[in-house]
This record gives sequence, structure tokens and C-alpha cells, in this order.
Amino acid sequence: MTAATTRPYPAGMTVLSPARDAFIRNSFARQSAMATIRASLHHLSPGQAEIHLPVWDGILQQVGFVHGGVVGMIADSAAGYAALTRAPEGAEVLTVEYKINMMAPATGTSLLARGRVIRAGRTLIVTTAEVLALSDTGQKTCAIMQQTIMVVPQG
Amino acid sequence: MTAATTRPYPAGMTVLSPARDAFIRNSFARQSAMATIRASLHHLSPGQAEIHLPVWDGILQQVGFVHGGVVGMIADSAAGYAALTRAPEGAEVLTVEYKINMMAPATGTSLLARGRVIRAGRTLIVTTAEVLALSDTGQKTCAIMQQTIMVVPQG
Amino acid sequence: MTAATTRPYPAGMTVLSPARDAFIRNSFARQSAMATIRASLHHLSPGQAEIHLPVWDGILQQVGFVHGGVVGMIADSAAGYAALTRAPEGAEVLTVEYKINMMAPATGTSLLARGRVIRAGRTLIVTTAEVLALSDTGQKTCAIMQQTIMVVPQG
Amino acid sequence: MTAATTRPYPAGMTVLSPARDAFIRNSFARQSAMATIRASLHHLSPGQAEIHLPVWDGILQQVGFVHGGVVGMIADSAAGYAALTRAPEGAEVLTVEYKINMMAPATGTSLLARGRVIRAGRTLIVTTAEVLALSDTGQKTCAIMQQTIMVVPQG
Repeated sequence: MTAATTRPYPAGMTVLSPARDAFIRNSFARQSAMATIRASLHHLSPGQAEIHLPVWDGILQQVGFVHGGVVGMIADSAAGYAALTRAPEGAEVLTVEYKINMMAPATGTSLLARGRVIRAGRTLIVTTAEVLALSDTGQKTCAIMQQTIMVVPQG
Repeated sequence: MTAATTRPYPAGMTVLSPARDAFIRNSFARQSAMATIRASLHHLSPGQAEIHLPVWDGILQQVGFVHGGVVGMIADSAAGYAALTRAPEGAEVLTVEYKINMMAPATGTSLLARGRVIRAGRTLIVTTAEVLALSDTGQKTCAIMQQTIMVVPQG
Repeated sequence: MTAATTRPYPAGMTVLSPARDAFIRNSFARQSAMATIRASLHHLSPGQAEIHLPVWDGILQQVGFVHGGVVGMIADSAAGYAALTRAPEGAEVLTVEYKINMMAPATGTSLLARGRVIRAGRTLIVTTAEVLALSDTGQKTCAIMQQTIMVVPQG
Repeated sequence: MTAATTRPYPAGMTVLSPARDAFIRNSFARQSAMATIRASLHHLSPGQAEIHLPVWDGILQQVGFVHGGVVGMIADSAAGYAALTRAPEGAEVLTVEYKINMMAPATGTSLLARGRVIRAGRTLIVTTAEVLALSDTGQKTCAIMQQTIMVVPQG
């Protein structure tokens, strides 16, 4: 069964090892699509990842909000990197599918996508993400996502 | 097949009026996010829209395929513009949600996202899209999407 | 968990009025499908609803777990009734769509589906649900769902 | 369109072997949940399966339509059995996740869920389903679904 065998975090594993943290950040740095939209990887811990995206004039749709597809991009990536923190060393992860609900216009000064692992199985990892729109006056959840990730052993 | 049962277009309505075609293409032209990833709107007819994306080095993920989020962007847009062809004059459309399955690596020389309307209601429009990866040697479906669009009457 | 960011309930609105509670429970009582699978509506509060389902021999799949479609039924209903608590008086709600991930075999003595509202708009309500499998030795999340509900004003 | 590009069946594989057909129908017969709602498995061929459900008074929601969760049950099963036709001998299949859009009230004399395989991989199979509402006066698509199935080798 898919997820019956979720791996509990090893005791004390509340932060990633420096090597693991570097491995994941290096993977992100090789995603040219993230650089093109100016997204960056911030917080990273076991089962969680956050991506930050400043709102700028090259990522908008026709009425001036951030394009829903761009919102999907950072949600997909944040949840995917959250999953990678739970994959075995040397493994890659691939997005099998995701479903995202847009709940409010993505506006403000920046967006923050928070991904987290709900259950990590040996082959599949189930995650969720939420995307917050940040402005000078506060924050608002503009999208929520539910995703399935596949673990791909390497070599 | 899922999409075989889409409602037939009203008799005679096999092409968009020049004014409607121009309205929709103008909307697309105002999406800076589409320009940033170098996507363009091609075929447009009642209930259908196609978006073309050349594969270039600014839209990739860490192993050199087109980023899944970018695949989602063009699928979302293609289906959204398909929906706009079926919305009343003067109305805008917004993505309520979408769900996309990645089925094969998005590689090749370009991607083609084909959106189509499955059912157009007064408030909600249900669409699907598929994304084809095109190369010198053929084509391959790399993703399928199912989406809900909301019709927003304008002032 | 995704739903951690749900909008707080309006101050003071921590319980439903007796009339509203009765209206919603009466709606549930008219769902013959829920009686057929032996599901019952338990906890009900603003933005939340819980459905309980004993595991019995008429709701299984081929290897003896509760059928995934039945898991989907109670998740859909729990989230739909959570949405109904946030709809205007006299309105009905309809499921637009839902997406559910099965994470572990649905086994044990009973299932508990917990639905909650993430954002309630005038026309659409976004919800999530989780389904817990309960047994003598503990509980386990066996599915999570993300759903869109439409508010239908009544004549 | 979504499903037009499904992988062609291997040459000559237009019907299931009698043994394979019997194996799959036997699996369905062991699903007590399908008997409880009175669903039956009809057409079965490589990559396709159809489930029939008479409309009766034990599967309804509060306003007299077939319960959306029941619509989801037969869509999930039809697509799952379509996937099983493409799985290796001896393997089982499990639903990883599905997403369903309800497009019209499920009413009439019976429902027909048609599942089909879009892409069959070694570990995961992507499927779609549509649910038709049949009546004396015609038929109407009332739901479409997109699903991910996992192949589970046995023994």
C-alpha cells in the first residue's frame, strides 16, 4: 500500500544535516525556471520547504495579479522540495500530479509558498502547500494545493 | 472518451468573430507571465485554444526537463482561454482550480498545450487540457489537466 | 496541515444556532446514500462537520479494506456539510469537484471523516477533509481531500 | 483532446483473454461495496471498463439526485478496473488519488461510468472516467474524473 509505511522522523531530526541542506539547495539552484520567475528557496527543514517570490511585472496575468500558473509553479516546487527532504539520500523526486485551488487574487509585494509532507511512503509522498500573498498590511492565503510525489532511486 | 461528449457548438459557430478573436488575443498579450516564459497563443476557436512554448534554457528544472510548474502554466492558460471563448461578451474568466498529471518528461523542441471546454455553464466552465512534447522525431503527451473556471461578469 | 490557515470564525460564532443545527442534520437525514452505507453525522460547528462510519461487511473492496469510493463518499459529505454551516440561511450547497489522496488502507473498527472550511466566498466555498481509520490500538489518517463547493441560493 | 493520444494497445490485443477477463470480474464480485450500491461490471476490454448503476432510492442525496460520493465510487471503480486490464498478471492495483468534477445532476434511470487508461507505466497508471446519466429521453455526461493508480506486484 502506497503510504502505509511512512517513515517517522528519526529522533532528534528536527533540522537537516548540512550536507543534505546543501544537496537540496543545489538542486533548486539548477532550476532555471525558478531563476526566470525570480523565486528563491528559503526555509528548509525535515518535511517542510518555503519558496519566496517577489511580485514583479514579468509574472502577471491580464488584470495585473500574479499569474495562476506562476502561483502553481511555486506551490509545486515548495511541496516537491519538502518531499525531497524526506527522500532517501541519492534519490530524486518527480511530481506525479497536483491539484490547486485559487482562493484570492495573488497580489501584494511578494508570495510565500509553504510546502509540507503529509505522508512519506517508500515510493510515493503526499504533500500539501499553501501560498500566502504578503503585503505591507498583512497576509492572505491565496491558494492551497494537494500533491503526489514519486521517489526515484538513482544509479 | 472523456472529451468525446463535450457539448456540440451551436450550429454555425465554428469560428470566432474577428472582434472576439481580437479581444481574446489582446487579453493574452497582456499576460506578462506568458511573455516571460516565451509562450504564444496559436489556434483559437469556440471551445478550444492552443498555446505553444519553445523549449529554452530558462524554463527547466534540475535535470534539464521543462519545469512541471511551467507545464502547468501553459495547460492552465490554454484551458482558461478555451473557456473565455465560451464566456459571454464582456465577461472575464478566473481559474477556480486545476489538477494536472505529469505523464512523461517534458522534453523536445517545444510544447503544445491544447485546452478545450467540456461543459460551459452560466457560472462555471469545466475544461480539460493536454500538453504535447514535440520533437524532430514525433510527439508525446506529457501531461493532462482537468480544470474549473469561473465566469466573472464585468461592471 | 493545510487547514491550519483557515480563516478564524467570526467572534462569538463558535456554535451553530439550534435552528441551523437542526436544518443541517435534517438535510443529512434525507441522504439515503448515507443511511445505506450506515454513516452518521456527528460533530457540527461553524465551518466543521464530522461523519462517522462503522466498518461493516457491505462497504469493502476486493481485499477487505473499506472501498476507496466509500472513503471518498464520507469525505465529500463531511466537507460539504462543513460548507453548509457557512452558507446563508435557505441556501443549498453542491459539490463542484473534489480531489482525494488515499494514503493508507482504510481498516479498523470505524472511519471518521473531518471536513472543514478553508475559505467561504459568496459563490464558492473551498474545503478540506481528512479521513481517520480508528481501531482499538489507535488512529491513522487514511485519506486527505480538497474540495470546491458551490452555494445555490434557493427560490 | 485529452484521451486521443493514449498509447495504442499492442497489436492484436483488442480483447482480454478469457482467464484475464474472469480474474478481473472475480475481483469485482468480491467488492461488497459495489453490491451494496447495486453496481455491476459490464464492458471490459484492454484499457477500458464500464460500470452500470441503476438509480434506486438508497443512493440519493438530500434533493433526490444520486449522491456525488456514489458517482465518485463508480467512476473510481470503472477507472481502476480499466487500469487492472493493463497491469501485469498477478498484480493488484490501488487508487493513489482521483479528482472528479460534477457537471450536471445525476438523475435518470441509471448511470454508466466509463473508465479508460491514458498511460500505463510500470508503477503508475493514469486514467480518466466519465459518468453518463441515462434516461428514457437520452444521455448526459454528469461527471468527469482524472485518476492515478498504483500497480502492486503480488507475492
